[in-house]
Amino acid sequence: MAGAINPNYTKGSGQSAPQSPEAWLELVRHGGMPGLSRAISLLENHKQEARSTANALLDLCLPYSGNSLRLGITGIPGAGKSTYIEQAGPYWLQKGYRMAILAVDPSSQRTGGSILGDKTRMENLSRNPEVFIRPSASAGALGGVGLRTREAMLLCEASGYDLILVETVGVGQSEIAVHSMVDLFTLIAIPGAGDELQGIKRGIMEMADTILINKAEPPAEQKAKMAAAELRNALHLFPKHPYGMEPQVLLMSALKNQGIKASVDHLESMLLKARASGAMEKRRKDQAVFWFQEALQGQWEHILERNTKVHQRYLDLKAQVSSAQMSPFLAAQQLWAELVSAHGN
Amino acid sequence: MAGAINPNYTKGSGQSAPQSPEAWLELVRHGGMPGLSRAISLLENHKQEARSTANALLDLCLPYSGNSLRLGITGIPGAGKSTYIEQAGPYWLQKGYRMAILAVDPSSQRTGGSILGDKTRMENLSRNPEVFIRPSASAGALGGVGLRTREAMLLCEASGYDLILVETVGVGQSEIAVHSMVDLFTLIAIPGAGDELQGIKRGIMEMADTILINKAEPPAEQKAKMAAAELRNALHLFPKHPYGMEPQVLLMSALKNQGIKASVDHLESMLLKARASGAMEKRRKDQAVFWFQEALQGQWEHILERNTKVHQRYLDLKAQVSSAQMSPFLAAQQLWAELVSAHGN
Repeated sequence: MAGAINPNYTKGSGQSAPQSPEAWLELVRHGGMPGLSRAISLLENHKQEARSTANALLDLCLPYSGNSLRLGITGIPGAGKSTYIEQAGPYWLQKGYRMAILAVDPSSQRTGGSILGDKTRMENLSRNPEVFIRPSASAGALGGVGLRTREAMLLCEASGYDLILVETVGVGQSEIAVHSMVDLFTLIAIPGAGDELQGIKRGIMEMADTILINKAEPPAEQKAKMAAAELRNALHLFPKHPYGMEPQVLLMSALKNQGIKASVDHLESMLLKARASGAMEKRRKDQAVFWFQEALQGQWEHILERNTKVHQRYLDLKAQVSSAQMSPFLAAQQLWAELVSAHGN
Repeated sequence: MAGAINPNYTKGSGQSAPQSPEAWLELVRHGGMPGLSRAISLLENHKQEARSTANALLDLCLPYSGNSLRLGITGIPGAGKSTYIEQAGPYWLQKGYRMAILAVDPSSQRTGGSILGDKTRMENLSRNPEVFIRPSASAGALGGVGLRTREAMLLCEASGYDLILVETVGVGQSEIAVHSMVDLFTLIAIPGAGDELQGIKRGIMEMADTILINKAEPPAEQKAKMAAAELRNALHLFPKHPYGMEPQVLLMSALKNQGIKASVDHLESMLLKARASGAMEKRRKDQAVFWFQEALQGQWEHILERNTKVHQRYLDLKAQVSSAQMSPFLAAQQLWAELVSAHGN
C-alpha cells in the first residue's frame, strides 16, 4: 500500500477534518488510501475556504509530486478502455509500479458519471489494495474540464503512486484536458464498418502518441489489421510530434488478453525514453502553464457555482449570444462586471 | 465602394472621434473604407472607455452583420497564401462579392506583423478600391488570439462586405481562433521533400474543410500530385466533419494561376451549400458561444495591459509555475485576487 497508514486519520468517515494544509499533507503522505480519498474530496468541495485550503495543500504537495509516469487513455464508449485497463493493470504491477487510476468525464454532470462510476467494470483491479481507483469529479460550468483530475493526480503522486492512468471518453474537450496532463496519450480504437476506425472525433487522432487497435480477434480481426495498415500508412502524412515521439499503431485484443503485455512494454519504454531525453520535462513545463491559464478560468467556476444569480445570468447571456441577440463581447463585459462584483462581496 | 461615403466623417485623420456608439455605427455603415478603418482602430484601443464604446458598437452592428460568407485561409509561411489570395481575389470580385481581407497573426507582437503588414505582397488587390485589406491587430498577453479580428469581421459585414477572408499562419492557436470564426477553413499546403506535405502542425489538417495543394507546377508537379493522392486516400480515415462537409483536396499553382478559378468555384459552392442546409447557422451559433468564453478571457487582457503591476505579477507567477516552484492553482488564486482588486480600483 502506498504510504503507511496513520491510524489517527483512518478511523472512519466520522472523524474531524484536518485543521491546516500541513495536516492535510500528512494525511496525503501517510494516511493511505482513505487519507488520499478524503484529500481528493477536499479538492471537490466548492466552498471558498475548502478551495483555499486545497490550493495551499497542492502547493505543499509540489516537492513530493512529479515522480510518476502519467499515461492518458481515451477512446469512444465501447472501444474497450475499461477491459484494457483491467488486463493491462497486472503487467504494470508486475513491473513494480504503484498504480492510481483517475478519470475525466465531462458527461458526469448529466449522467452522474459514466466511466469508472461502476467499479465492477474493473473488477479485479478495484479489489486490489495496491491500486487506487477514483471516479471522475464533475466538471464545472465554465471551462476547467479536468482541472480537479489534474489536481488529484498531484495528490496521488505525493501519496506515493508512481503510475497515474487517466481515462477519458472521446468528446473533444476532455481529450485536450487529459492530453495536457499526461506524458503519453493513448487512443484505443476499434475497426468500423469499412476500413476506417469507428467514431473518432476530429483532432483526437493527431493528439495520440500511441494508437491501440482493439478487437483484433474474430470476427473483426481482418478489419483491425487493415485499419492498422492504413493508419500506419497515413501516419507519415501527419506532422512530427512536438516532443519527438513517433506515434505507433499496435494491435490487441483486450477480450482475449492478446497484445496487452506488448502494449505495456511499449508504453513504458516510450515513457522512460521521454523521461531520459528531457522531452517529458519540457512537456510538463508547457502543461503547467496551460493549467495556470485553466485555473484562472476555474476561478470563475467557483463564483458561478457559489452564486446562483451570477450563474443564471451566465446562462441567460449564453443563450442570447447563441441566438445572435447579443454580441459575445458585450455579454462578456456584462458578466465580468457581475463576476467582479460578486467576488468583492 | 461599400456604402456611400458620408463626407462628415472622411475629411481626414484630424477629425474628432464620434461621440456615441450610434455615431460610430453611422461611420461604419456610411463612412466608407476610411470610416471602417477608424472603427477597427477603436477596437484596437486598449483604454477602458474605448472598449466600452467598442462593445456597444459591436452590439449595434449585430442586426447588420452575419450576411457574408466567411472564409479562413491558413498555411505555413512560404505556402503561397498571399499569392493565392491575389490570384483568387478577381474571381470572387467577378462573382459580385465585396471582399474584405483580415489577418490573425499571433507573431505580430514580436515582429510588428509579418502577414499583410506589407501590402505590396497583394499588389493588385491592395490597389483595388472594392477590396478592404486590414493587417492584424496584435493579440493580447493572455488568450484572446483573434478576438479583435473576429470583431473587425463584424464591422466589415455591417459596412457592407459580403465575403470576409481571414488569413493566418500555421502556428496552432491562431488556427483554432480562425477556424472558430469562419464558415469554411482552407489549408494551403505544399509538397515536402518526400510524398508528405511540408511542415503542417499537428491538428491543423483535421480542422481543414478544404486542402489546396499549391506548387502543382514544375519542378514540384509530380510531388504535388502524389501528395494529393496520398492525402485523398488518408482522408477517409479521418472523422466525419461535424457540419456534414466532405473535405476536398484540390491541386493548384498560384504562381501560374492554374486551378485558382476552380478552387474559387468549389469554395463558393461549399459555402452556399452550408448556408442552404443550415449547417452554417449551426456552426455560427457554436462559434458565438466560443467567442463569449474567449471574450471573458479577453477581459483579463485589458486589465493586464492597463496595469503594469498586475502584468508583471502574471509573468512572475507564470515563470514560477513553469519551473514547478508554485502550483498552477495557487498561482491562479493569487493572480485572480490581484485582478479583482485592480479591476475594483
